[in-house]
Amino acid sequence: MSGTFFFKKVAIIGVGLIGGSLAIVLRNKALAGSFVGIGRGKANLEAALRLGIIDSFTTDIEEGVRDADLVIVATPVKKISETIRKAAPALKKGCIVTDVGSVKKAVIDEVEPMMPEGVHFVAGHPIAGTEHSGAEAAFAELFIDRKCIITPTDRTDRAALEAVRRIWAAAGSDVAVMDAVVHDRILAAVSHLPHIIAYSLVNTVADIEDSGIDALGFSAGGFKDFTRIASSSPEMWADICAMNKASLIEMIEAFQARLERLKRLVASGDYEAIRGDFERAKSVRDSLLKTEKSQRQG
Amino acid sequence: MSGTFFFKKVAIIGVGLIGGSLAIVLRNKALAGSFVGIGRGKANLEAALRLGIIDSFTTDIEEGVRDADLVIVATPVKKISETIRKAAPALKKGCIVTDVGSVKKAVIDEVEPMMPEGVHFVAGHPIAGTEHSGAEAAFAELFIDRKCIITPTDRTDRAALEAVRRIWAAAGSDVAVMDAVVHDRILAAVSHLPHIIAYSLVNTVADIEDSGIDALGFSAGGFKDFTRIASSSPEMWADICAMNKASLIEMIEAFQARLERLKRLVASGDYEAIRGDFERAKSVRDSLLKTEKSQRQG
Repeated sequence: MSGTFFFKKVAIIGVGLIGGSLAIVLRNKALAGSFVGIGRGKANLEAALRLGIIDSFTTDIEEGVRDADLVIVATPVKKISETIRKAAPALKKGCIVTDVGSVKKAVIDEVEPMMPEGVHFVAGHPIAGTEHSGAEAAFAELFIDRKCIITPTDRTDRAALEAVRRIWAAAGSDVAVMDAVVHDRILAAVSHLPHIIAYSLVNTVADIEDSGIDALGFSAGGFKDFTRIASSSPEMWADICAMNKASLIEMIEAFQARLERLKRLVASGDYEAIRGDFERAKSVRDSLLKTEKSQRQG
Repeated sequence: MSGTFFFKKVAIIGVGLIGGSLAIVLRNKALAGSFVGIGRGKANLEAALRLGIIDSFTTDIEEGVRDADLVIVATPVKKISETIRKAAPALKKGCIVTDVGSVKKAVIDEVEPMMPEGVHFVAGHPIAGTEHSGAEAAFAELFIDRKCIITPTDRTDRAALEAVRRIWAAAGSDVAVMDAVVHDRILAAVSHLPHIIAYSLVNTVADIEDSGIDALGFSAGGFKDFTRIASSSPEMWADICAMNKASLIEMIEAFQARLERLKRLVASGDYEAIRGDFERAKSVRDSLLKTEKSQRQG
């Protein structure tokens, strides 16, 4: 890419870990002039102001987005369309609106029809995060070497798409552009399904505890690693599941078939087939580590 | 406990991470005189000798256990009964035989009837390990603050049970004594089921990869944590699954019911019920961390 791009005014709706970190990137790279933070929690907005992430803030969405050249919607995924609906009347012509939600098709289907003439929506999803949240958790390096998926549609403005791609590239991310449905299926498989499984497993063990057997007391590091994601926000994950219903159910059913197969092999004592299944999984899992290492070294 | 206990000669069958570490503990605590290592791999036995874990070694089980006061069987779980069958003719009266297998009922059912008159078998399972194996991975601190479960039966000699309990207490473990079936159900829930799930999940994602969609490339830290145990030894885990069939199938089915419930809630869009399930799991998972912390501090 050649040429410069610069956003005179950026509005961040939801100045948390993701929104705050992206603002820091844009400021550090001198890709934007001023930043207005928009949110409902004043304490968080005040922290963001104190930290120099934003230059001003408001709790009024319309007021905040007025005259903005770039609007970053970093609210919980369920709130994205509602938020954009509120912002829409105040968006100026030429403005680019982008989001960071974990589900893309449902968001796009709701948001695209709301866009005023000449305002461009580009859906995005940085696959990055930490266990912390809020403006105080934000940092410039969050997106470095992380994947970011952008999911344009036939209606997406090509220049706006390119601008959003460059923002994430500037953040250090490895940007992929794909169809929203493909995104949702991939994320259902590698993220949403694992969460559903982790919550289900912990509840299974909790049921055993309730029956009077202290099982958790004998769990070791493997169980703690395995169930870490069951400590994720129930509200956020219930939203994601609700918004990615079709792909998630597809993946749950694919997993159920795999698990049922293993159960039958265990029941029939087919040791060789059990080992075969385990070996395939181990080889795939191990290849993941090799990829990770080569990326780090490369 | 008052009184001293001392094993003049200890035979370790399988001088790997677990067997080697326990030998180091017994030597450091001056609870034993000499150590003979028994195994099939000479290179590992030579390493154990060089490291001072054992004083001598042999590949002949009968020769190794002759005159031993304590025999620690630290082979893969599937080999335990076969190993003890070979050792039995040479075991001296008063000898204590203990194992470290991850499945207890199947081992006990096979081993108890083999015990010569006056030789005492006490089944045990230290819940400890690292990702490394072999004598060179052994270290004295492996068992500190880890749970160790001992599973006596009506036939277990009380003095031998007490001696094995004291060995693990000396290693720094938190020793629990329970019925073998309860052990097998607990371990099925917190260890064997999670492995079955992890292998099934990785294979589910591998199936998607095979269909031409690069899903693994978009997996993040959560997926890597969650599937770490799918990199475990397929052979060892196929053995464990085969040997703990009844409890494992019980736990797989309990999990299947939990997962099916969540799938239906997602399908019907019952957001509140989904969140309720997630909240219960999070609260149980978080309590696990609190317990861990208070144990560390305590």
